[in-house]
Amino acid sequence: MTWPGRYTDTGVFVCFEGGEGSGKSTQSRLLSDALAAEGYAVRLTFEPGDTAVGKEVRRIVLSPETGDLDDRTEALLYAADKAEHVETVVLPALARGEVVVTDRYVDSALAYQGVGRGLDKLDQRGTSALEHVARWATGDLRPHLTVVLDLEPEAGLGRFDERDRIEGESLPFHQRVRQAFLDLAAEDPAHYLVLDARADVDTIAAAIRERVAPLLAQAVRSGQSPS
Amino acid sequence: MTWPGRYTDTGVFVCFEGGEGSGKSTQSRLLSDALAAEGYAVRLTFEPGDTAVGKEVRRIVLSPETGDLDDRTEALLYAADKAEHVETVVLPALARGEVVVTDRYVDSALAYQGVGRGLDKLDQRGTSALEHVARWATGDLRPHLTVVLDLEPEAGLGRFDERDRIEGESLPFHQRVRQAFLDLAAEDPAHYLVLDARADVDTIAAAIRERVAPLLAQAVRSGQSPS
Repeated sequence: MTWPGRYTDTGVFVCFEGGEGSGKSTQSRLLSDALAAEGYAVRLTFEPGDTAVGKEVRRIVLSPETGDLDDRTEALLYAADKAEHVETVVLPALARGEVVVTDRYVDSALAYQGVGRGLDKLDQRGTSALEHVARWATGDLRPHLTVVLDLEPEAGLGRFDERDRIEGESLPFHQRVRQAFLDLAAEDPAHYLVLDARADVDTIAAAIRERVAPLLAQAVRSGQSPS
Repeated sequence: MTWPGRYTDTGVFVCFEGGEGSGKSTQSRLLSDALAAEGYAVRLTFEPGDTAVGKEVRRIVLSPETGDLDDRTEALLYAADKAEHVETVVLPALARGEVVVTDRYVDSALAYQGVGRGLDKLDQRGTSALEHVARWATGDLRPHLTVVLDLEPEAGLGRFDERDRIEGESLPFHQRVRQAFLDLAAEDPAHYLVLDARADVDTIAAAIRERVAPLLAQAVRSGQSPS
């Protein structure tokens, strides 16, 4: 089973993916600020945690105090966050013609829980059960563009003094996650942009801005309605 | 796709299902007490909420303060509770040869979120996405026996002064849920016992105890190990 993917025809959905410390928050904010400065209506958001229930989920899955969680429990909590996020934040903004810029989305589930935790191997039906859960949670809504900020895990993890439950995973875990992002991008180059996260911040931002440009025909300026 | 179902060959897994106020807690406790008095090792449990993460999930999904939750968000939170419950409570006890008696399990997801909320209709692949999620969460582990305590919703709901988020749903919602439990039982009579919840408490308890008797060959007495 391949999931067909659903793309809205109003608004622009841009997603940032990558490992820890790869600069996703910085670059998603720079893109969001640049587009807002040009007059576009922009919604900057993130997963997990940008809804009321998502905040609770984020607290449970990321707090080191949670201790061991069954891998499926973790994946299902993340999926619950995604369902609420797509339904109450992402889809309404896209319907209004806004540019939605999200820091993490479904690929993080496929990479961290699927490949990192090995949950993509659990399915008894020849398809990935983890992907089924993440696609179902989001109604298979896809970003028009996913920007992968690629970085060696050794470099990214070095940026943190204190690590949360996920950051504290082993180096091989983070290496599998990195490869998973690259594999997803390689399968669908029309919807992905892979950039070396070690490049200069402004160089990366410019490359992203350039790749986003042709998508903006679907976006409205602040105060407009989608045509 | 039919899910094949997985049954352990040590321990006995008994599940109580039914609408609000049908006596599940009372009857699960009576069965548990009776078997313990006969020397069996019994683990009485419930969903949602009988693990640390399950308690958090229960608080989110049942508190009237949560307000609106996307239906898929709710279903995925319940599924997260199930994954943790099966992995950390149910399976370990069954592996030790214990009798596990649970107040609610997968059928509650299929009835409340699937049929009640209509999520069994959302799948794009001709199978129920909600069932996929619930079966995946539990590794498709099935109870050796599910006891359905059947009651008209009007009678059951009348027992509560204050209702939580689920109890506060409409009467047609609860009527769909009731029918869903009966339909699940009708499909697999070998693993179900349907009883009229209006009968006398002791009469119901005796009928359950009788139906459980032949299953106890798989159960150990307290302090024993499974052979």
